[in-house]
Amino acid sequence: MSGGRRERAVDALRATGADVLLAADPATVGWLTGYVADIETGPSPFAIGPFALLQHDGSVVLVASEDAGEALPGVSAVWFAGYGLGPLDPLDAARDALAPLLAGRRVAVEAHAVPAGLLEDADWVDAGAPLRTARAIKDPDELDALRAAIALCDAGQRAVRDALAPGVTELELWTAARAAMELAAGGRLAVLADLVSGPRTAEIGGPPTERAVAEGDLVLCDLVPRHRGVWGDSCATLAVGPPPAEAVVAHRRCVEALDAAIERLRPGVRAGAIDATVRDRLGAELPHHVGHGLGWAYHEHPRIVPGATDVLEEGMVVAIEPGRYAAGCGVRVERVAAITADGCEVLSGHDLSLTA
Amino acid sequence: MSGGRRERAVDALRATGADVLLAADPATVGWLTGYVADIETGPSPFAIGPFALLQHDGSVVLVASEDAGEALPGVSAVWFAGYGLGPLDPLDAARDALAPLLAGRRVAVEAHAVPAGLLEDADWVDAGAPLRTARAIKDPDELDALRAAIALCDAGQRAVRDALAPGVTELELWTAARAAMELAAGGRLAVLADLVSGPRTAEIGGPPTERAVAEGDLVLCDLVPRHRGVWGDSCATLAVGPPPAEAVVAHRRCVEALDAAIERLRPGVRAGAIDATVRDRLGAELPHHVGHGLGWAYHEHPRIVPGATDVLEEGMVVAIEPGRYAAGCGVRVERVAAITADGCEVLSGHDLSLTA
Repeated sequence: MSGGRRERAVDALRATGADVLLAADPATVGWLTGYVADIETGPSPFAIGPFALLQHDGSVVLVASEDAGEALPGVSAVWFAGYGLGPLDPLDAARDALAPLLAGRRVAVEAHAVPAGLLEDADWVDAGAPLRTARAIKDPDELDALRAAIALCDAGQRAVRDALAPGVTELELWTAARAAMELAAGGRLAVLADLVSGPRTAEIGGPPTERAVAEGDLVLCDLVPRHRGVWGDSCATLAVGPPPAEAVVAHRRCVEALDAAIERLRPGVRAGAIDATVRDRLGAELPHHVGHGLGWAYHEHPRIVPGATDVLEEGMVVAIEPGRYAAGCGVRVERVAAITADGCEVLSGHDLSLTA
Repeated sequence: MSGGRRERAVDALRATGADVLLAADPATVGWLTGYVADIETGPSPFAIGPFALLQHDGSVVLVASEDAGEALPGVSAVWFAGYGLGPLDPLDAARDALAPLLAGRRVAVEAHAVPAGLLEDADWVDAGAPLRTARAIKDPDELDALRAAIALCDAGQRAVRDALAPGVTELELWTAARAAMELAAGGRLAVLADLVSGPRTAEIGGPPTERAVAEGDLVLCDLVPRHRGVWGDSCATLAVGPPPAEAVVAHRRCVEALDAAIERLRPGVRAGAIDATVRDRLGAELPHHVGHGLGWAYHEHPRIVPGATDVLEEGMVVAIEPGRYAAGCGVRVERVAAITADGCEVLSGHDLSLTA
């Protein structure tokens, strides 16, 4: 952990009036400690957590199961028992580890994430909302990790483009994308993704199926891999063979809206103004957000939505993703940019061309 | 939901003395409702849950975000708002949906899983442990789903065997396994896996890396895919080229221990006796459990561990996985079996041969 986020976390704790902060959302635990929680297979039957404690002096303690224990620079840790040959009680081990750290103290928690069994006798207050906003500005090490995650998006998008041909199924395209990202990362990745083709592009997104693509289809591919704990994001829409005329128009309008939004990204601009820049061009054809922050969660502040009053600041990282979803012709393009002192730096490098 | 599990769930509720049961562990929610929670990308930034409520009369209500809403036969549902263009508060929407269902009632909960923010003013008691044991006996529809999940294991193990050759990396083997399972399933899968080769086989497990396998290496591959909400499980160990003599011996001893355990599986036998059957043959060379139940969680009751007093019953499904882990020569083999009226039925069909 480096940079300003420890200070912002302490500010969020201070605002609650609590003595100590107990983070339980894996995104917040990662943000505070650098610990990358296993998330791909749901809750472990052996252990709950991980958790992180933040004191007013800025010191942080990771409290996690030894099953996935790894030392982290600059963070002290309390490991509790996980897997073993004896009876399993995922709650008890964590409760025993946390009890001495929380005893007699008022605790700021993430009430949406912390298990009730850990707070049975605690005096607690919810700090979920201020913590979500505190994560919006990225430190240099977070920016580095985001760059790496977005480089994986580029590799995945390239693989889809290379594999695209009539007769290939959505699942085969997905396999190519995932393999390319994991091979580029050198290991397994959690990946959120939309991969839809043909009629289903009108549904905005969805998982890959056994549907084979055909000439004239569009393929909408949104790849969101997690690398070193932070999420990349990217979207492109590709035509199989020569693109239909309406797809060319929809695609051009989306790219123009994306370019216009990126042009406006700079400190001091309200998120709602970026939303309007895109929505004014696409109108009711855009049923979702224009964009969102990106970091330890795949959707975080600042949210680029209608009327959003969040003001962009240097160090924020935002995905912008204009889309139009007509019957049989859903199109979306997406790039990620980091807000700089006087504008932004586009981090995404993937090809947005409609023709593969 | 069909068969006897609704009755066992009601028994677990009744034993707590509570008025209603609130399930929050995705495994228990799936068990009660059939709802397959998204788990591959960690907690959603848009919504918490899913949850399930069980009444004393056996009726079940799914309470979940409409983001992943799908009708389930025989289960009523209360959907709450998830993703939207307005401010996000993942806790509030779920709390509002649950409030009228819980008001004035004593609630049995899974205290390791239910967020504290949902129980701030509730009168609750923990039912985590009895629910875990209640899930051990499978209904016919669960057995069908487990068969399908294990068929995917077979496909994944076959793909590793087919792809194995000197110079191939662990990640490439993993990609082949995952692709084969997802293509066989017709969609994306959550997969827990060990895929280690050479020296790292002595470490029992771990994720695939960029290491290329070489002649004389062992490859240990444990594939645990989730399909229709339930988990398959399987392990095989393969030699690259002619196997070293010590690997042949270790492998034979593991297979013999596996066969001996399967031979003993039948109603009325204690789990600890199955553990002893294997452990007596492998001794201290086996550092982990002999096996475990399998279902909506990838490790559940009955746990096949030393001294376990759980008695096997018809309808339980157990994985048996003897292993030996010498330096440079880690071996594990695993099959899954369903306990029948007078013995067991082996569900796994993958090849356990050491030579590819």
